[in-house]
Amino acid sequence: MLRLKFEEVQNTLEKVLYTRNCPPEHARKVSYEMARNSLEGTYTHGVNRFPRLIWNIDEGIVNVEAKPVLVNRFGALANYDGKLGLGITNAWFCMEQAIAQAKEYGIGLVALRNTNHWMRAATYGYQACAQGMAAICFTNTIPNMPTWGAIDSRIGNNPLVMAFPREKGDVVVDMSMSQFSYGALELAQLEGRRMSIDAGYDEAGELTRDPSQVLKTRRILPTGYWKGAALSVVMDLLAGGLALGNTTAALGRLGGDEHGVSQVFIAINIHKIAPPEEVERIADEAVRDLLSSRPIRENGRIVYPGERSKEIRAENLKAGIPIDERIWATITSYL
Amino acid sequence: MLRLKFEEVQNTLEKVLYTRNCPPEHARKVSYEMARNSLEGTYTHGVNRFPRLIWNIDEGIVNVEAKPVLVNRFGALANYDGKLGLGITNAWFCMEQAIAQAKEYGIGLVALRNTNHWMRAATYGYQACAQGMAAICFTNTIPNMPTWGAIDSRIGNNPLVMAFPREKGDVVVDMSMSQFSYGALELAQLEGRRMSIDAGYDEAGELTRDPSQVLKTRRILPTGYWKGAALSVVMDLLAGGLALGNTTAALGRLGGDEHGVSQVFIAINIHKIAPPEEVERIADEAVRDLLSSRPIRENGRIVYPGERSKEIRAENLKAGIPIDERIWATITSYL
Repeated sequence: MLRLKFEEVQNTLEKVLYTRNCPPEHARKVSYEMARNSLEGTYTHGVNRFPRLIWNIDEGIVNVEAKPVLVNRFGALANYDGKLGLGITNAWFCMEQAIAQAKEYGIGLVALRNTNHWMRAATYGYQACAQGMAAICFTNTIPNMPTWGAIDSRIGNNPLVMAFPREKGDVVVDMSMSQFSYGALELAQLEGRRMSIDAGYDEAGELTRDPSQVLKTRRILPTGYWKGAALSVVMDLLAGGLALGNTTAALGRLGGDEHGVSQVFIAINIHKIAPPEEVERIADEAVRDLLSSRPIRENGRIVYPGERSKEIRAENLKAGIPIDERIWATITSYL
Repeated sequence: MLRLKFEEVQNTLEKVLYTRNCPPEHARKVSYEMARNSLEGTYTHGVNRFPRLIWNIDEGIVNVEAKPVLVNRFGALANYDGKLGLGITNAWFCMEQAIAQAKEYGIGLVALRNTNHWMRAATYGYQACAQGMAAICFTNTIPNMPTWGAIDSRIGNNPLVMAFPREKGDVVVDMSMSQFSYGALELAQLEGRRMSIDAGYDEAGELTRDPSQVLKTRRILPTGYWKGAALSVVMDLLAGGLALGNTTAALGRLGGDEHGVSQVFIAINIHKIAPPEEVERIADEAVRDLLSSRPIRENGRIVYPGERSKEIRAENLKAGIPIDERIWATITSYL
């Protein structure tokens, strides 16, 4: 495992993007956010995912130059066409628009169609928090999970973000609608581990913690069983409907690697109706109460959502970002 | 089990509310919605819950006359003080305000503090759908669930609603952040059933499907394990912060039966940026694809979120609402 400085990682990713004729503004942003994803512990959607982004650019699924184009706007509500641009810059742009609308109207919603993978969902929650706003965002995905009671995959494990700004540390939830990602199952299989809880169904149709069984059946478990399956469906309709874009069903028909997804960004200008110091006091008291929970294990630790990511960032800033040699070799081979 | 007509149920509940000096407008609305909850299959928050509402009125937790009072407003964002009024009329009022704001600005958010149990969360999703709008709502609750990795209950099983309007049937998700409610566990214990999946922890600290074990430890399972626990925390901060109201921690300190909760209502005027017929086509195609999933069991059936409730309504309209004799005797004894 390498340990590389954030700046080195970002510079390298940026240089690779230039080999794909990426405009500087986009190359800087995408390299920054993907290096930051690894810096803050979301390795799956950071450096590890970068080679796949390059393949997606090379196969023409991702257009490095495209910018979102306004489709319709009414007051605090707008939808954009992402023109199959880079997922990160498209999503960032739309959250900025939602924030601008929230500055004017108190709340803003932007829906985005024909876009690409936004990588770490939490990014856009933190983006709003950095401007003192709360946020709700979600995206749809290709069909990769069976709905409740079904065998075949017709819904997506669509991630949901809810973010709350706090001076002592933003509280950000970034949860996908499958209990585990395929990536997590593959990693566990590689390491010969079982999952800590049920991860999906085996060939006999029973719940199992064995990742290789679930990888065989492709029947991953929705988060909260029937609940996450249902939430996935309604988020898909909201994203597809508001953006006039692809739903998971339509994404399935496109074929190839995932592209053309639909997303929703909501920014909430909380301090326009609630004094900042009062909000901070309310939130701080709630977080302190949460953290005073009695852990199950003797030296167990209770954290608030987002706390670990802040700590990993500090650790990786000091020690360098851990990066697999083979992945780094692949990335530098593009230069 | 009795089978009573909707009108008889509503009229009886309404008459009981008059014995508690409830203003006619409030008595009509609360009796209508609680009868409707049972009509549409949410028995736990319909007639079955009515005696507890009466106790809450009698002990002074619920003020039958109170109406929400505006605290702050900025554009499409507002917060209200519910003055410990009836949960249903308070919540309905605030969703109406959110809808009014969404008519003007495309989206509207209303936060509500010092309110009481809104009964069936889905009610306010359907309320928005009936006016062609999508909705997101959530409420906090008293501490009734341990956070992930903890033994003691310091978070709430805060329900979340997401609703999407559709001519062929609204798609509405109403999910609490515990996999099962205490009510569901108690019912299973009474009937000598085990839960279909893990419901919480036993005294040895292992996951169990045995409801009596979980009722003993009070360690119910968050929806999606760590995921629902995290979502519960951020929804609590959003509700408490936006409404300048009680968080779950503060509700725990109030003591007594649950009162003074905080809620958030978001209405999204989707058709202002997306033509209705286009939205309907996109959603219809997605729902049809979902329903074409292959069921696990030979005569299994795949439904969209909200479909069963529509069917139960039709069944109960025909056969009458099933009501436990003892509960009905309690209710009529108030007259």
